This record gives sequence, structure tokens and C-alpha cells, in this order.
Amino acid sequence: MGIKRPKISVIGSGFTGATTALMTAQKELGDVVLVDIPDQEDPTKGKALDMYEASPIQGFDAKVKGTSDYKETKGSDVVVITAGMARKPGMSRDDLVSTNAKIMQSVTKEVVKYSPDCYIIVLTNPVDAMTYSVFKESGFPKNRVIGQSGVLDTGRFRSFIAEELNVSVKDVTGFVLGGHGDDMVPLIRYSNVGGVPLDKMISESRLEEIIERTRKGGGEIVGLLGSGSAYYAPAASIVQMVEAIIKDQRRVLPAIAYLEGEYGYDGIYLGVPTILGGNGIEEVIELDLTDDEKGQLDKSAESVKHVLTILE
Amino acid sequence: MGIKRPKISVIGSGFTGATTALMTAQKELGDVVLVDIPDQEDPTKGKALDMYEASPIQGFDAKVKGTSDYKETKGSDVVVITAGMARKPGMSRDDLVSTNAKIMQSVTKEVVKYSPDCYIIVLTNPVDAMTYSVFKESGFPKNRVIGQSGVLDTGRFRSFIAEELNVSVKDVTGFVLGGHGDDMVPLIRYSNVGGVPLDKMISESRLEEIIERTRKGGGEIVGLLGSGSAYYAPAASIVQMVEAIIKDQRRVLPAIAYLEGEYGYDGIYLGVPTILGGNGIEEVIELDLTDDEKGQLDKSAESVKHVLTILE
Amino acid sequence: MGIKRPKISVIGSGFTGATTALMTAQKELGDVVLVDIPDQEDPTKGKALDMYEASPIQGFDAKVKGTSDYKETKGSDVVVITAGMARKPGMSRDDLVSTNAKIMQSVTKEVVKYSPDCYIIVLTNPVDAMTYSVFKESGFPKNRVIGQSGVLDTGRFRSFIAEELNVSVKDVTGFVLGGHGDDMVPLIRYSNVGGVPLDKMISESRLEEIIERTRKGGGEIVGLLGSGSAYYAPAASIVQMVEAIIKDQRRVLPAIAYLEGEYGYDGIYLGVPTILGGNGIEEVIELDLTDDEKGQLDKSAESVKHVLTILE
Amino acid sequence: MGIKRPKISVIGSGFTGATTALMTAQKELGDVVLVDIPDQEDPTKGKALDMYEASPIQGFDAKVKGTSDYKETKGSDVVVITAGMARKPGMSRDDLVSTNAKIMQSVTKEVVKYSPDCYIIVLTNPVDAMTYSVFKESGFPKNRVIGQSGVLDTGRFRSFIAEELNVSVKDVTGFVLGGHGDDMVPLIRYSNVGGVPLDKMISESRLEEIIERTRKGGGEIVGLLGSGSAYYAPAASIVQMVEAIIKDQRRVLPAIAYLEGEYGYDGIYLGVPTILGGNGIEEVIELDLTDDEKGQLDKSAESVKHVLTILE
Repeated sequence: MGIKRPKISVIGSGFTGATTALMTAQKELGDVVLVDIPDQEDPTKGKALDMYEASPIQGFDAKVKGTSDYKETKGSDVVVITAGMARKPGMSRDDLVSTNAKIMQSVTKEVVKYSPDCYIIVLTNPVDAMTYSVFKESGFPKNRVIGQSGVLDTGRFRSFIAEELNVSVKDVTGFVLGGHGDDMVPLIRYSNVGGVPLDKMISESRLEEIIERTRKGGGEIVGLLGSGSAYYAPAASIVQMVEAIIKDQRRVLPAIAYLEGEYGYDGIYLGVPTILGGNGIEEVIELDLTDDEKGQLDKSAESVKHVLTILE
Repeated sequence: MGIKRPKISVIGSGFTGATTALMTAQKELGDVVLVDIPDQEDPTKGKALDMYEASPIQGFDAKVKGTSDYKETKGSDVVVITAGMARKPGMSRDDLVSTNAKIMQSVTKEVVKYSPDCYIIVLTNPVDAMTYSVFKESGFPKNRVIGQSGVLDTGRFRSFIAEELNVSVKDVTGFVLGGHGDDMVPLIRYSNVGGVPLDKMISESRLEEIIERTRKGGGEIVGLLGSGSAYYAPAASIVQMVEAIIKDQRRVLPAIAYLEGEYGYDGIYLGVPTILGGNGIEEVIELDLTDDEKGQLDKSAESVKHVLTILE
Repeated sequence: MGIKRPKISVIGSGFTGATTALMTAQKELGDVVLVDIPDQEDPTKGKALDMYEASPIQGFDAKVKGTSDYKETKGSDVVVITAGMARKPGMSRDDLVSTNAKIMQSVTKEVVKYSPDCYIIVLTNPVDAMTYSVFKESGFPKNRVIGQSGVLDTGRFRSFIAEELNVSVKDVTGFVLGGHGDDMVPLIRYSNVGGVPLDKMISESRLEEIIERTRKGGGEIVGLLGSGSAYYAPAASIVQMVEAIIKDQRRVLPAIAYLEGEYGYDGIYLGVPTILGGNGIEEVIELDLTDDEKGQLDKSAESVKHVLTILE
Repeated sequence: MGIKRPKISVIGSGFTGATTALMTAQKELGDVVLVDIPDQEDPTKGKALDMYEASPIQGFDAKVKGTSDYKETKGSDVVVITAGMARKPGMSRDDLVSTNAKIMQSVTKEVVKYSPDCYIIVLTNPVDAMTYSVFKESGFPKNRVIGQSGVLDTGRFRSFIAEELNVSVKDVTGFVLGGHGDDMVPLIRYSNVGGVPLDKMISESRLEEIIERTRKGGGEIVGLLGSGSAYYAPAASIVQMVEAIIKDQRRVLPAIAYLEGEYGYDGIYLGVPTILGGNGIEEVIELDLTDDEKGQLDKSAESVKHVLTILE
């Protein structure tokens, strides 16, 4: 019996999924299974093998396996879902929601079948709705189904602030609530540089520009890349959440959590500050909000609820 | 000529000096020279050799050398001064200041002789005065002579908060000004957990207790150890500063810096928020203080000035 | 229930025990409990607290607790035993064996009581006999009781070779069999630098000197320190073994393993190459030995058996 | 002036170049500039920005910049060249050589113009000839122009052996000479697992299969991916070399070095064991070869010379 290395499965072997697998392995969080559809089996195997071949050079011990067979995910401790479609030209946003929700359902069925005790982290967009969809399909308790958006939004915000002030990224703390991207609610008064409040170091107007840039952060990368979207920072964000769970760290991180009364919302998934540890979402931290902040959060919640109507 | 590995010398091979050497080597910040008086040459060599023998096992590349000959420190990039006496029974605080100041002078002479371009970080107590003493003796510009106290005080504060809330130490940000220990000026409103202000998470009275425990943090360890004082957290603190300089990180860290007008003080070394990078103290960050905070800081500055009078 | 952070207990809070606790925490292998006798409870608490206060600064998440109460070790995954006496003037080697064996017995009783499923790593000297003693007292299967000596001997050998050739310690591979120190059987033909056999790079006579220095490696440090013995490299060695088990790495490491027929020995603990993973010693690797090597190993085994007679 | 963070430029922002930039930044080896042709400027900027946005999350301090302007590479310490074409259908191998040699020349001109003191590491295929081409164009001394192939080949070999034996990749040492891929000359007798020679642990026939798989390692990934070639392990390989130089580690690594008499060859670049440190290739290690090994190496050298004739 003995001590068994943890197992992390990543569903979807696109750039984000593959980079998530790499970063998980680099940190020796466990063995990694990268899963994609049968059509993509060979490329998935190729990426996994390439990563594994990097392991003696980088000095990490982690098996990395590519597959299209969910059996290989059996007994996973954490499963990350990155699968899903990007919006295609001519496709409505509602069509995208329906399409990806169907993907979530079929993926979740397989995940649950082989790993009934796992924690699931969802990245697929629109992430609030997709996390909800996985939650419903899985039948898992709410602490075991979590969406990612705040770690990424905060990471972007922190990197812009560090660049602006020419200081270490290690010392910038940011804080966001609400949905991803446009629906993001930044709490500037809760953001600081080495403890120093941002508004002591950056003018209000410049800060507004940086917030706006953060909101549009995903779009900025899409625009530059020409095709496809960001994957390095998104993967890093997921892996931080995986690490918090696998190492039972009780980190204070923004996450998309299922709310039952917190912040006055009920029955939706929304981005809030949480404690993330060996039980997944161990706690939702409730903050006093100003009227303005609460107003923004309401807007964000409305937007999430609207998407949910499409799913019904 | 090529690229040369940085060199860090640590003066004083007691527990703090030795642990500083170890942690510097573990992080591969450069080769390390551990220096003590001729009387301690053999134990110093023994500790250095023991560390070096750990290097293949822990996988770090750093030569670690013990010596009593300052020649070996030649061309150091950073020099850490931990040498000095602890107060002995019957010794007045003023006697301690005079004794350690003399040690600072003789050490500094040797350091400057062999490494005229180095950065010096001082840990010896009373650290504000000893840093001043090294500054005067060295003739170095102020950005290259720095004292440590705030990183340690903050570290202690952060660890107590993390324990209190049972959350990751990674997510607690603390902030202190002023002198070490009793003279410490904690800025609670600038401290947070994952961005959430402390006073949202801990009651005021409990917070007061934790601040008081932080103030007495050095004494708590002394009391427990029975003989000697803390060395793990102090060494970690110095090494974070060494890393900030060697890797040119421009970290936002509290440090004991020479003030020329900042915060209304002139010609003294005092603990303030700084940007620490490849030029040592690259900037002193000035904050608006409340009357209460300014009052505490004044008291701290008075205490520093008082010690300086002994040196004259 | 969820995912629980592993727990590692270290018995004996002397320099080696304390450094083992530090390095275990630095690597985030789990929470650490440092145990010593009631008489040493306060200093043990002091060291543990000092380490914990270093954690926010070095960025590792691990609770570190000092205690004299074995209850605190409850449910440990790995227990490291460093407790024991050093030989005092006038004390015969046999007296030392008896004294430390008694310590092993009383420690083991407590360890087993609170952590019946743990893995035990023994460092106390004479380590072969002390590991045997713990094995007998624990009633554990042989794969769960392991002694440390070869990782340390190899580490020393590697560091001397790297120094001799002025190359990275990362690229030197060494290999030893048999007992600790004088009884060590180095297998030069199995040692190399980046794959290049040592005898291609170092003259035979110089190599002999380095082997001899390795044999006397512990004594060299003792001689230099004046009082006490090595602790940095010994702690690093233990922690590498702890990591191999906690992360289920199946590392190929020399360890003191219980032999039942391997290499022609039965019923003794002896230093041999093993595979160390989540089941402790998962395999003893048997090598063809030359007559000379086998002769040396026999001598080493005799020496181990002789010590065991004292225990009966 | 102070201490300046090192600067590493990566030419070519394809998968390998981008992954090299990421891994360089993750290790905090320095600031990174990712360069591609004007046509690719935006995607290059996008990838660099995405990496930089990952930095606060992963906790590394490194600026990462995308550009098509070589001015940005000014003062680089190390420059990695990954630019070049892959063979297209209908293109002869000779055409590929000519095309990529032209790219090497134009890239090298720019690199040398802005970083006359840098070290250059070449990855573009056929790597022996392309390294030669860069060497000639640069006018640099031979120690500053280095090709990568052996670290990758060895990494693959090590990963296959670790998988075969189900042991940690950390404990497998491999050794290759000669050209990349088909021309690789594996020295099995210099390869081991934790010091144990491979032929003690794996049958000869199985070992032959693994060697053959290593030779075809690049092709295996190409075949699986369907389009494009390996990038994770190649990037890891380059970054290990960059690290050896930047940190002045004097690692013993296989590299493509310019030979002037070593192994009986003159005026060609060939894969040999080297010491890689702050002066680039500090030494070529010469080994005694068996007749069979020498024969294989001659074949490899012939193949390299043949390609060179195309360049003239």
C-alpha cells in the first residue's frame, strides 16, 4: 500500500491544457494524465512524451501520459477541465454556451465515473456557467467543484502594476471579485505593493487605465497572437489552485465558488475570495463592500445568471 | 573573462552567520565565504565544509569556505555582518553598544579593504546604530550600507497571523516601520491576508496581542532557547535581502536605511519601506502616516538617536 | 476528509534533528513535529518556532512544532530518529551501543504507539545496529525501517571529487556499500563524472586519498568543530530519503536495509543500493562484486554483526 | 552602476523558442527577450506578455519582452538561436542546409552587432553545421559558440531507462557522443542508474531497443504530433546550458563544440563531453574510445563534414 504519488488529470490537450500538465509536473505535484478526444490522441501522446523527456533534464519526477481513454484518469486526486470550443465566426455567444455545456456534461460523466472522490477545477469559458454545469452533472458537493478566473485576473493586474512601478512581481498583491474579464470587480483598496496601498504609488487615472487593461487582458493576448488565446498565465493560475489542494495549503485565493447566501447570492457560481486547501474550497471569505463595489458585483452576478438561463 | 559567479561573504560564523551561509548557498546566489576570528577558524571551516558536503545531496552549486583571513573575501559582491557580542550579565546596554561598535569598525576596515565595491548588510544589534557605525567607517555611499530588521519583524508577524487564521503564510502581507523589537511601528492598515485587511478577519484585541508578541518576538525565542537567540528567521531575512541585491529584483522590503530628510529625519539609520535591488537601497518609499503612527515613529527615531550619542 | 498534508516527526532536536526539520519544511514535504525529552522541551519549542517564523520569508508552507509529548507525533507518515548520545570520554564503544539501544527502544515504543503505519529512518550511531534495534522493537515489516549512511558517505565523496576537478556537484555520481565511515566500501568503478569514469579523470593515488578522506569524513568535521559533529550534510541526507518516500519517487539510493539472503547475508542491517519509494525500501539491488569488494563487504558485515552481539 | 540582472535573448519565437523563454524566466536566470521576424512581431509580443503575466503567479522575477527589433537584445549575456525552417515537402536536405545557413548568417550579424560579448547557443538543424555557420559568421572565439544536441539525446535516453526500470529520472545518468539523432553514439558503458551500470539492470537486446528509440526520438515526437516537432525537452536542454553559463556552474555536459585536434578531428563542430561554465565551453573532455565507438564517431564526423561541404 504505502504512500502513493498524487494523480492529476488534465482534460483538453490544447495549449492551456498542455502547459497546465507541464507546470504540474515541474512542481512534482503528482503524476499527470493529459486527455483529449480520440481524434487528438496521437498529438496528446506526443506532447506528454515530450514533457516526460524533459523531466530528467529539469529534474522533476512525474510520469506524464497522453491518452484519449478516460480509464487512464482512474483515481485522480484533482481533475482540471480545459476542454471546450472557442467561439467561431458566426457563432452566437449563446450557441457557444450550449456547445460547451454539452462538452462539460460528457467530460464530467467520464471524470466522475473514474474518479468519484476528485476535486474538479474548471477553466472552460464562460467559466462561471461551465463550472455550474460541471457541478450539476457531477453531483459532487460544492467544495469539490471550483472555477478559475480570479487568480489569472489578479496575476495580470499584478504584472501590470509591477511593470508600471518597476518593482518585483513578488511584492504586488491584487484583489478581484466577480466574473472574468469585463465582469471583473477589482478592489483597489485591497491591493498593495509590499503593503503600501496602490493609490499612494500610482495616480488614479493611471490606475484606471491599468484596471481597464486587466479587464481586457484576455483580449489583448488574443489580439496579439492573431489566432488562439493566452495559455501561459492561465495554466499557471490553474496550477496554483491544484497545488493549494494537493499540498493542503489553505491559500487565500479568489476562486469561482458556489454561493448559498454569501454576498446575498444563492445558487450561482461567482468569483469570490476563498480559502483553498485539501478540502477544495474550505471557506468563502465575506467582505464588506462599498455600495459601488456591491453594485458592480451585482452586475457581474446578473451576467452570470443570464448565461445560466441558456443552460436550462 | 566570462561570467563569474557572485561572491557573498558572511562575517561571524555563529548560528545566524552559519545559517545565512547555508541558505545563501541553497539558493545558489553565489559562492560563500564564512569568516570568523582566528580563534574560531577551525569550527568555521568545519561548518563550511559540512555545508559544502550537503551540496551534492541538495543539488546546489556553491563553494562554501570557512576562514579567519579576510583576504578570502576579496571581491565580494555582498558582505553580511553578523559578528558582535550578545549582552552579558552585568553589562550595561551602553557598554554593549561601545563594544559592538568597535567590532563593526574593525570588521568594516577589513571588508572595505578587500571588497571596495560591495554591498553591506548589517544584522548586529543594536542594528540601527551598528549600521550607522559601518556606514561611517566604510565611507560607502548610503545605498550600499543597509541594516536588517523589518523583514524579520514582518516575517514573525506574518507567521503569527497565518497561524491565527490557519491560512498559508504565502498570503499574509505585513508592514512595519521604525526600529527593531520594542521600537517597531506596525502599520496594521497596510497589512492583509490575500488582500483582505486584517481587521476584517481578526478582532482588534487579538490583533493587539499578536503585535505585542511580534514586538517581543526575539525575546520569546531567547526565553525558550535558554541560551542564545533566534537564527533561522534572522538568517532567512538577510538572505532575502541578499537575493534582492544579487538578482537585482527591486523588491519592496522594509530595511534600515540612511535618511536624509525622508519622514522628516536626517542623518540617522531607521527602518523604512525601501526598494531593494542591484544598487542596494534604490529608493526609500515615503508614506503618509497618521498622527499616531508618526508619533510612534518619532519615538523609535529618538531611541535610535539616543544610541548614536553613545557612539560619539 | 479531503487531502491531508503529510506529517513528518523528527525525534531529537539537536543540530542534526533541528536541521532535518528545517530542510523538511523548506521542501514542503509536510508538517513537522520536532520531539525531544521533557528537559529539552523549551529549547525544542524555540527552534521550531524560529523555523516557523522563517516560513513566510522563505515562502514554504509547513507547520513546525516543538514538543516533548509523543502524542503530537500522532499519525506521522515518516519518523526520523536522530536521538542518542555521542560517545563521552571514558565510555567504551560497547557502553555507547547499550546506551543508545535503550534509547532506541524507548523512542520506538512511543513512535509505534502513535504512528503504527509510519516509515522510520534511523540516523543514531552505530547506525546499522541502531536500525536493527528499532526494527526489532517496532515489529514493523523490514521495508518500513531504514537506516541512513550511504547517502551521506556518497555526498561527501561527491563533494570532494567535484572540488578536486572543479566541476559541478550535480554531475558527480558516487557509489558506496557497507557500513558507515571506516567500514564503507566505495565502488569506484561505479562512480563517475557526467558519465565519465573517475579513473579517467583522477589518478589512482589521488583517488585513494579522496576515498580515505571520505571514510574519515565524519571525523574530519568533528576535529574541526571541536565539540559536536556534522549536521548539515547528515540532515540533507535524511531529508533526501524522506522526500523519496513522501513523494513516492523510487529513487536509487544507498540505504541500510534488512537483508534476508541478499549479498549472502541474513538477518542483519547493512548498507546496500536500494530503490526507495512510497513503500520505503521497495527493492534491494544486488550487484556482482569483485572478490576484493566482496572481501571488504564481508569485513563490514562482520563489524555490524559484532556490534549486534552487544545488543543480545 | 551596481549589479545588473543577466539578459538572455532567444531568437525564434516558435514553440521551442517560446518554451525556452518560459523556462529561462521560471528559473530567474535573467530578463528575457524573445525575437522573431517583423511578420511575427505581434504573436511574439503576445507570447512574451502571456509569460510575463504568469510571473506573479509562479513567483519569478524576469521581464519577458517580445520584439522583432534586434536593438532590444543589446548587451545580452547569452543568445539562443532557435530560428530556422523545418524541411518542407519536396525540399531536399541540401536545400534545407542552405536555407537555414542563410538564416544563421543574417541572425548572427544582428546578434553580434548588439551583443559582441555574448555566448551563443544554437539549436537550429542540422545543428552541427548551423553551429559552424554561426561560429564563422560571428568571428567569436570557439568557447562562445556552442550547439545543443547531447543534453536532449541524453535526456530522452534517461527518461526511457527510468520508465523501463520504474525508477526516478534523477538517478539515471546517460552518455552520448557524436551527432544528433541517427548519428548519435551512445556510450552504454558510461551510463548508469544510481551508479549501477545499465547492463546489470537491462538485457542487452532491450537496451538496444531503447538506444534505437533514442536515436529516433525526435522522429517519434514528430510522428505523434502530426505537425511540428518536439519543444519541451529541447527547450529544457537549452535552458540547462544557459543556466550552466549564467551561473558559472562548470557542468559536465555533452555539447557541440569546435574541435581542434580533440578526438582526432580538426575544424568541425561535433558532440563531445565538455565542461560548460562562465566561459562557455571551458574544456573538451577526451575519453578513450573502443574501436567500435571510434568507428561510430568517425561515421558521425563524416556526416557532419558532408553537410559542411554544402555550406562552401
